[in-house]
Amino acid sequence: MSRRVPTLEDVAREAGVSRATVSRVVNGVRNVDPAIRDTVRQAIDRTGYAPNRAARALVTRRAETVALVVSGAGDHSAESQNAFATRVFADPFFGRVVGGVVGFLRPRSMHPVLMFAESDEARDEVLTYLRQGRADGALVVSTHPDDPLPALLSEAALPAVLFARPARPVPLSYVDLAHWEGGRLAAEHLVARGCRRPATVCGPLGVFASRERLAGFRDTLARHGHPCVPVVEGGFTLGSGSTAMARLLSEHPEVDGVFAANDLMAQGACQVLREQGRRVPDDVAVVGFDDSSVAVTSHPRLTTVRQPVERMGAEMARLLDEHIRGVRTEATAVGFDPELIVRESA
Amino acid sequence: MSRRVPTLEDVAREAGVSRATVSRVVNGVRNVDPAIRDTVRQAIDRTGYAPNRAARALVTRRAETVALVVSGAGDHSAESQNAFATRVFADPFFGRVVGGVVGFLRPRSMHPVLMFAESDEARDEVLTYLRQGRADGALVVSTHPDDPLPALLSEAALPAVLFARPARPVPLSYVDLAHWEGGRLAAEHLVARGCRRPATVCGPLGVFASRERLAGFRDTLARHGHPCVPVVEGGFTLGSGSTAMARLLSEHPEVDGVFAANDLMAQGACQVLREQGRRVPDDVAVVGFDDSSVAVTSHPRLTTVRQPVERMGAEMARLLDEHIRGVRTEATAVGFDPELIVRESA
Repeated sequence: MSRRVPTLEDVAREAGVSRATVSRVVNGVRNVDPAIRDTVRQAIDRTGYAPNRAARALVTRRAETVALVVSGAGDHSAESQNAFATRVFADPFFGRVVGGVVGFLRPRSMHPVLMFAESDEARDEVLTYLRQGRADGALVVSTHPDDPLPALLSEAALPAVLFARPARPVPLSYVDLAHWEGGRLAAEHLVARGCRRPATVCGPLGVFASRERLAGFRDTLARHGHPCVPVVEGGFTLGSGSTAMARLLSEHPEVDGVFAANDLMAQGACQVLREQGRRVPDDVAVVGFDDSSVAVTSHPRLTTVRQPVERMGAEMARLLDEHIRGVRTEATAVGFDPELIVRESA
Repeated sequence: MSRRVPTLEDVAREAGVSRATVSRVVNGVRNVDPAIRDTVRQAIDRTGYAPNRAARALVTRRAETVALVVSGAGDHSAESQNAFATRVFADPFFGRVVGGVVGFLRPRSMHPVLMFAESDEARDEVLTYLRQGRADGALVVSTHPDDPLPALLSEAALPAVLFARPARPVPLSYVDLAHWEGGRLAAEHLVARGCRRPATVCGPLGVFASRERLAGFRDTLARHGHPCVPVVEGGFTLGSGSTAMARLLSEHPEVDGVFAANDLMAQGACQVLREQGRRVPDDVAVVGFDDSSVAVTSHPRLTTVRQPVERMGAEMARLLDEHIRGVRTEATAVGFDPELIVRESA
């Protein structure tokens, strides 16, 4: 059943167009007349032609794709193969990053390769993958401040852009939110509602963003005459939000406003408040952070500080593209402004 | 500043090992002595060697990667570039599929390319991508029963495996759950709790899985002396679950047990029940479906029918690998059993 492998010439003959036109369609060049494009595609179907991408990559020396890497810290190779990936995607925040990245890449006919790097072996694999030229660069979303991957990428001089400022300085570009400003928005809203006893469930203090949100909240409240604000540290999970809220209520039963540093913790806080007979927002107002899908599915719906995560994801991809093409050489930080979204909880 | 490009031989000399050993490390072959692997990797770092993956692909004619495609129906090219991706990832169900797929691929040093196909143009791009050999096959998760992508892949004779049985028969392998059995588990549990007036919020009836879950629920209740069960159709979203539950309560105020065909709708049902002063589970017991992350974050935590989504994702990848290698040629359906997880809501 052997038969000759169809070539570009076969397609051109079948479609009645030039070799160059077939090549443009095959390579996804956008400004081809749609009618001609359809004719060529039909000819490709009829001939069974499969362009040799590998041959092309040999010439361009570009994979024309990027890796989207979700990384952790330490060496979690003991964790089951898929537990880390499942855990990451359970947080709706990450889906918004993917949406933004894909929004930039798709019009350029690029599709990200999804990689996870939560162990030494997995980090090695990311570096090897990039060194082998299977992807031209990496978009990195770290889930832990002690993530060693950014430094490894920088030392290997591989193009990479980070989501959020790394805990330790690394000469790589990143996008980030004005977190202090987010904390300020939450404080101003609680004060404007008439809260007299505000408190906060902050994020892990090893995370730069957590410290900044807390500082923005405290600095603003101090300016409004609240120099001492009760703080309990949470871990960005629902359970840690519940535990922290229970502690706040037992130590400061008079609390009437809470800023939780992400939406999952705000949801946990609302559950504990309801269990203890406090109405949200009438008795205690709650402000979250992120505007993730949890904000609209929890009860009551959360008033929250929105991060423009999709725009940030798209900007990451844009910066990486510039680094890969050599148009941008210096590490650059691009900041985004948060926005208060008022719903029911405050 | 030009310098000679380092070669495999340079690395071998630097590491003091054979060319074949370097090649094994570079190609990610697993059974290499870790000490030797580290020596070779350090030599790669020192020499700056970057293996030419494209040259290798020319020989093997394999991209050694697969596409993970999330597809929709119709032509949603009007929808903003990233809205579809964001919407899909907002459902924690999809994260579990990714976890399972990655769990199978990673030990094989493969990483999925993430693609979205919700418009004609995007579907074309998936087909082109596969024809060009940039990926060896596709794992397809459809979000809509009218998705045309499975038929297009089958007609183009491209290796593909589907998550869930397609609405119209297509000669492609797929993994799926025994949905009827899931409906049966929900019914048996409500009956065993002593529910006398069970009802259901079913999924979209155009979806095969929805019909099967409903049939399993109804058939089992009929066997227990409930020939007529109130049914309201939902759309697998939180809001549709709330709306359906409100309608059930107004038309059948005596209802004391509800089976919602996914966890998001169960969460919406619980919110409406609480708003109308019904206690869950004491007044109305609620059983969900999926065991997604919503099941543990909603209040009360959901009793639900668990789909082993991670195992199903891994099996998809395994089947595709066999199709690509030519070990499996016939389209195959692999079924999985659901499991009842009892928490607080029923």
